[in-house]
Amino acid sequence: MTVKVAINGYGTIGKRVADAVTAQDDMEIVGVVKRRPSFEAFDAVKNGYKFYAAAEEFIEGFRQEGIEPAGTLDDLLDIADIVVDCTPKKAGYKALYEKKGVKAIWQGGEKHDLTGLSFNSFSNYEDAIGADFARVVSCNTTGLCRTLWPLENEWGIENVLGVMIRRGADPWDSKKGPMNAIEPVLKVPSHHGPDVITVMEGLDIQTTAVAVPSTLMHLHSVVVKLKKNVPTQDVLDLWEKTSRVMFVEGKYGVKSTAQIMEIAKDSGRKRSDLFEIAVWKDGVHVVGDTLYYYQAIHQESDVIPENIDCIRAMCNIETDKWASVEKTNKALNLE
Amino acid sequence: MTVKVAINGYGTIGKRVADAVTAQDDMEIVGVVKRRPSFEAFDAVKNGYKFYAAAEEFIEGFRQEGIEPAGTLDDLLDIADIVVDCTPKKAGYKALYEKKGVKAIWQGGEKHDLTGLSFNSFSNYEDAIGADFARVVSCNTTGLCRTLWPLENEWGIENVLGVMIRRGADPWDSKKGPMNAIEPVLKVPSHHGPDVITVMEGLDIQTTAVAVPSTLMHLHSVVVKLKKNVPTQDVLDLWEKTSRVMFVEGKYGVKSTAQIMEIAKDSGRKRSDLFEIAVWKDGVHVVGDTLYYYQAIHQESDVIPENIDCIRAMCNIETDKWASVEKTNKALNLE
Amino acid sequence: MTVKVAINGYGTIGKRVADAVTAQDDMEIVGVVKRRPSFEAFDAVKNGYKFYAAAEEFIEGFRQEGIEPAGTLDDLLDIADIVVDCTPKKAGYKALYEKKGVKAIWQGGEKHDLTGLSFNSFSNYEDAIGADFARVVSCNTTGLCRTLWPLENEWGIENVLGVMIRRGADPWDSKKGPMNAIEPVLKVPSHHGPDVITVMEGLDIQTTAVAVPSTLMHLHSVVVKLKKNVPTQDVLDLWEKTSRVMFVEGKYGVKSTAQIMEIAKDSGRKRSDLFEIAVWKDGVHVVGDTLYYYQAIHQESDVIPENIDCIRAMCNIETDKWASVEKTNKALNLE
Amino acid sequence: MTVKVAINGYGTIGKRVADAVTAQDDMEIVGVVKRRPSFEAFDAVKNGYKFYAAAEEFIEGFRQEGIEPAGTLDDLLDIADIVVDCTPKKAGYKALYEKKGVKAIWQGGEKHDLTGLSFNSFSNYEDAIGADFARVVSCNTTGLCRTLWPLENEWGIENVLGVMIRRGADPWDSKKGPMNAIEPVLKVPSHHGPDVITVMEGLDIQTTAVAVPSTLMHLHSVVVKLKKNVPTQDVLDLWEKTSRVMFVEGKYGVKSTAQIMEIAKDSGRKRSDLFEIAVWKDGVHVVGDTLYYYQAIHQESDVIPENIDCIRAMCNIETDKWASVEKTNKALNLE
Repeated sequence: MTVKVAINGYGTIGKRVADAVTAQDDMEIVGVVKRRPSFEAFDAVKNGYKFYAAAEEFIEGFRQEGIEPAGTLDDLLDIADIVVDCTPKKAGYKALYEKKGVKAIWQGGEKHDLTGLSFNSFSNYEDAIGADFARVVSCNTTGLCRTLWPLENEWGIENVLGVMIRRGADPWDSKKGPMNAIEPVLKVPSHHGPDVITVMEGLDIQTTAVAVPSTLMHLHSVVVKLKKNVPTQDVLDLWEKTSRVMFVEGKYGVKSTAQIMEIAKDSGRKRSDLFEIAVWKDGVHVVGDTLYYYQAIHQESDVIPENIDCIRAMCNIETDKWASVEKTNKALNLE
Repeated sequence: MTVKVAINGYGTIGKRVADAVTAQDDMEIVGVVKRRPSFEAFDAVKNGYKFYAAAEEFIEGFRQEGIEPAGTLDDLLDIADIVVDCTPKKAGYKALYEKKGVKAIWQGGEKHDLTGLSFNSFSNYEDAIGADFARVVSCNTTGLCRTLWPLENEWGIENVLGVMIRRGADPWDSKKGPMNAIEPVLKVPSHHGPDVITVMEGLDIQTTAVAVPSTLMHLHSVVVKLKKNVPTQDVLDLWEKTSRVMFVEGKYGVKSTAQIMEIAKDSGRKRSDLFEIAVWKDGVHVVGDTLYYYQAIHQESDVIPENIDCIRAMCNIETDKWASVEKTNKALNLE
Repeated sequence: MTVKVAINGYGTIGKRVADAVTAQDDMEIVGVVKRRPSFEAFDAVKNGYKFYAAAEEFIEGFRQEGIEPAGTLDDLLDIADIVVDCTPKKAGYKALYEKKGVKAIWQGGEKHDLTGLSFNSFSNYEDAIGADFARVVSCNTTGLCRTLWPLENEWGIENVLGVMIRRGADPWDSKKGPMNAIEPVLKVPSHHGPDVITVMEGLDIQTTAVAVPSTLMHLHSVVVKLKKNVPTQDVLDLWEKTSRVMFVEGKYGVKSTAQIMEIAKDSGRKRSDLFEIAVWKDGVHVVGDTLYYYQAIHQESDVIPENIDCIRAMCNIETDKWASVEKTNKALNLE
Repeated sequence: MTVKVAINGYGTIGKRVADAVTAQDDMEIVGVVKRRPSFEAFDAVKNGYKFYAAAEEFIEGFRQEGIEPAGTLDDLLDIADIVVDCTPKKAGYKALYEKKGVKAIWQGGEKHDLTGLSFNSFSNYEDAIGADFARVVSCNTTGLCRTLWPLENEWGIENVLGVMIRRGADPWDSKKGPMNAIEPVLKVPSHHGPDVITVMEGLDIQTTAVAVPSTLMHLHSVVVKLKKNVPTQDVLDLWEKTSRVMFVEGKYGVKSTAQIMEIAKDSGRKRSDLFEIAVWKDGVHVVGDTLYYYQAIHQESDVIPENIDCIRAMCNIETDKWASVEKTNKALNLE
C-alpha cells in the first residue's frame, strides 16, 4: 500500500515535490491545491494531477479558465495521509491539518517553532520517524548540512563560519530586486546559522549573508575549523563518497554558477534541476586545521529529496536513514 | 537506411542538434567533435556519442582527462553523409568538407555568402532539396520567419519593422556583459532585416537592435503593415494553427521572459528548451492595417527543428516541406 | 521679487527640482516636505532647506532623529506661491492646494486628466502661462518631445514609431525587478504615445515598451516618417543646434548607456545628472523619408529643466518660451 | 613651490587623481597622457589639462579628432617630479621612469614586487617618505586597512577573515560579465589577504572572494577576532572618530550599495565619488571576542586620497602622517 500525499501550494517547491513523489513506488499524489489559475495550474492539469481549489471561493476562478476542480483542500485532506505544505510563509493551515488528522510537512520559510521538529536527512532522520508535523529546513540550511554533517561525523567540527551569497530572486521571478546592488543581511549573525543548529544540535556555527543580482543559485563561502588536521585530499575523498554532494571544477570551465546550471541542463532532469550540492573541487583547501570551500545551492530543488525522505520517516515506511536516502536517490537518479 | 550525421562543435547548438538527430528514425549521429576536454566533453561521452578530436594535436588533451577519442574530425568525415558545423564563426572547415565530399550545414553566425543558400523550414524548404551546403538562419531570423511567413502567405505584408531586444549573454556565459547597461546596435537598419530577406526574398523589412543585461531570451517588438485590414482575432487564429509558434498570456502570470522559461522547465523537455516561438496572445493588437506583437525567442534552441528539416531536405529523405516539419515536430514533441 | 517655491516630496525628482530652483535668480525654495526621516531627509537639512513634515503625525518621527521640522505642509503652503508635487502617484494633495490658493505642478506619473494641462517646454510653453495647475510630462515623453518637436517644426512628421527599452529600476532602488528577464508592456500601443500627444497635439505616434534589468537610463529606438526627404546630415545639423539634446558617438567608446553615464560623471554636475537627451550621432540614419535613431534618457533628471520653465510660465515671470529655456539652461550649465 | 605631477593613463583612476591633485595647494598637474581619443580624452582637454600622447605613433590619432597633443609621455617626464601610473596592469613603463629620473606611483593592479614598497596612509605612511617608487594598494586592500588598522592599533587583532563580494564590472563597463551568475575566486585564500599584509606586516588574515553581477561597489563581510573583549559600542566609537570611514544605517533606508551610491550623489562631489569606506552601523556586532561587520568600497575612488598622501610622502612635502591625511581630507571635503 502506498502513502497518499497531498500537495498544498503548486508552485516552485510544490510541483517538484509532486513529481518526486510520483517517481517513488511507496507513495503517490492524491491531489494538488492552488488558489488561482496561473500558468502553473494548467501544468498541474497537463501532468494529470487531480486538482483541488484552496477553498470554495476559488472554484469559480478555475471554471472560468476551463479547469474543473475535483473539490477543495478540505475534501483532499479527507483522503490524504500526509500533506506537503508549499504555500507561502505563514499561510496558517496547521489548525486545519490537525482537525483533519493529517500529517504535515512544511518548508524552510517557516520557523522551527511551528513544528518543533526540523528535518534534514543526514542530520536527524530518526527524529522524524512517526512524527505528525515536521519542517524540512531551507535550501541553504540543507546545503550546509550536506557538507558539514560528514565532516562533523568523521573528524568533529570546532566551529564554522559561512558567508551566504544569496541569489536575489528565483529565475521565474521578474518582480524582485536588487537589480544592480549588493544587499547585506544586517542582522548578524544571520538566521542561517541558528537554522542549521535546529538539525545539527550543538554545532558552533556563525553566518552572514548578502543578496546579489543573480537568479541562478546561492553560493556559500564556508570556513570550517576541524577538530583534527587533515589533508585536503581526505576531505575530497570524504565528499566524493557522500551522497547528494557533487564536485565541479574550474579547470573544466565551470567558473561560476552559470556553468553549473548548464551541467544541470545537460543532465536531462526535468526542469534542469540540481538536487545535489555542487562543491568546487579546486576551491577546497585546508590550511592547518582550517578548511575553506565554496558550494553552490540550487534553491529551487535541493530540498526535494529531503521532502521525500521526510515523508518516509513520518509515515513509518522506512526506519533506516540510509535505506531511505538510497531509495530516494535511485528514484530521482541522484549521485 | 538512416542518414549518417556528424556534429563538428559540441557546444550550445551542437549538443542540441545531436540529441534531436538521435530522436529521429531516419538519421543518426555517427560522431561528435570537440577541441578541448571541457565539462561538455564529459557530457558527450556520458550520452554515448562517439567522440572525435578536432585534430591530432588535441588528442593528448582528452587522454589526460581519461577520454579516448575514436579518431579525428578527418576520420569522422570519412563515415558521415553530412556534417552539422556548430563551431564558432569563421572556423573555416568548408574546404575540408568539400575535399571529403561531405554535405554540410552551418549556423546563423556565418554569413549567407558562405553557402549562397540560407534555410528556414517554412520559407524555403524546397530550395535546400539535394543541396550540398546550406546555412540555417540565426535564432532571431528563424523567429521572425515563423510568425511573418504565415502573414505573408495569408494576407501579404506591406512592410515590417522589428526591434530586437537581445539577451546580452547566454545563460551559461559568465564572461560577457553588459551587466547594467543597454547597448544599441548603431548600424541601422541592423543585420537582422537583410538576414530575413535571404530566406523571404522581396520582403520589405527594417530592424534595429539593442543588447540588454538578461540571459534568458531575445524579445522582438514587431510592427507589420499588412496588405489587408484584418481583425486581431484572425491573426490569433492564424498563429494558433501555425506550427512551432505558441501563445503565452500575461493574464496567467506570464509577464516576462522569466515565466516563459519556467513554462519550458515544466514541459519536461531536455535542457528545458523551448523550440517554439512564444507570442504574447494579449500583446497582439491590430490597429487599422498595422499589426503589433511581441515574441520571445529561446536563442539556444529555436533553430534545432530547422536543422533537422534541413538535413532531411539536403539528403533527399523528404521532399515535402510539411511532411518533414510534421515528422520533426512529432519526434521532438513540438506544438 | 522672487517666486516662492515649495517642494512636496523630497525624493528622486524633488531634491533635484529644489537644487535647480536654488540655481535660478528669479525663484527660491521656501521649504521642502517629507514623511519619514530617511537618509534623504538628512540631506535636505544639510543642504539648508527649511524642512516641513507632511502632517502633524510625522513630526515626532523626525524629532526622534534630531530633525526639528519648521512646521507642516499646511504651514508651508501659507507662504508659498507654487508647490512642485513630487510625491508618489495619486498622493491626492490637489484639494489642499486649491483650498490654500497655491499653484501646483505635478510630475509625469500622474495622468493628464488631473490638471487638463500637460507641459513640455518646446511643445507648449505658452499654454502654461498663468495657469494654476500643470503636469510636467514624464521623462520618456519629455525625451521624445525634445527630438520630435524640432523635426515636426522643421519638416513635418508623417508618423512615429517609438520602442521604449525602459530601465527596470532606478539606480537607488534595490527592491524592484526584473533581475534577469525582459518584460513587455502588453497594452499596445503603450501609454507613451498618447502621452506625447497631450503636448504635441495631432502627432501620429505609436509606441511599444519593454522593461529590462538595467538601472541607468531608458533607451528609445525611434523611427520617424518625415513629410520630406532630407539627408541624414540635415537631421544632425538640426539637433546640433537644438537645446537640451546632445550627441554621443560609438566611435569614441560610447557603446551603451553605461558610458553616457560616465560622461555625466565627468561633467561635474551634482548627482552626475544628465539633463540633456543623448542621441547616438553614428546611430542616426535616414533611409528615403524614414529616419531611424536611438536616444537615451536619464530618467532621474531630464525633466528638471522643464519643471523650472513650467514654474516660470505659470507664475508669469517670463512669457517668451526661448527666453525661459535659455535662462534655465544657463543657470543649470546646460548644452 | 609645488610638486609637478604627471598622470600616465587618463581613465577611471587617472582622471580622479588628476582632479584631486588639482584640489591641493602643494602639488599640480603638469600633464596627462592617453593613447587613444576616446570620450575621456575630450574630458581631459575640457578640464584644461595639458594633453600628451603616450608615444609618437599616437599623435596622429588625436590630431584627426581635433586634439593637438603638447608632446609625448617622454616630453612630459622631462618636466615632472613624479608620475602617477594609472595605465592597465603590466604596462611596463618602469624602465622609462628610471631612465628619466622621475619618481613613480603605481596602482593596486600591479604586484608588490614591482616596487617592493606598497602604501596605505594609515598603515605605513612613514615607509614611503622620500621613496622613488611605490604602489598604492588596491581599492579592496585600502578598504580593509581603513577599518582594520584602527582595531589593530587600539586593541590588537588575533585574526581576520574577509569575504569579498566583488562588483563584476565598473559602472562604465558594458563588456564584462557575469550577467547572471556568481563567480568564486577558486584560489583560496584569495590574493586580498596577502595584499593587506604588504602594508600591515604580521597581520593574520585570510580572504575569499566572489564576483557578482553588480557594478556599484565591492562589499566585504569581515570577521575579526580581537585580542580583547570589547563592547560593540566601543568599536562604533573608534570608527566614528576614524578618518575616511563613514557610517550608513539600514534603518534610514540604506539597505544596499545602491542607496550608498545615492548618498554619494547627494553629497555633490564630482563624479558622485565616495572616497570614504561605508560601514553599516547597524551591521556591526561583537559576539564575545569576535567582531562582525559589513563595509562597502567605492572601487573607483577610495584610493584617491591615498594617492595624494603617497605623493606627499615620496616628495618629502610632509613627513607627518596625520598632517598629510588632514590636508588631503580638507582639500577633498572628506569625513
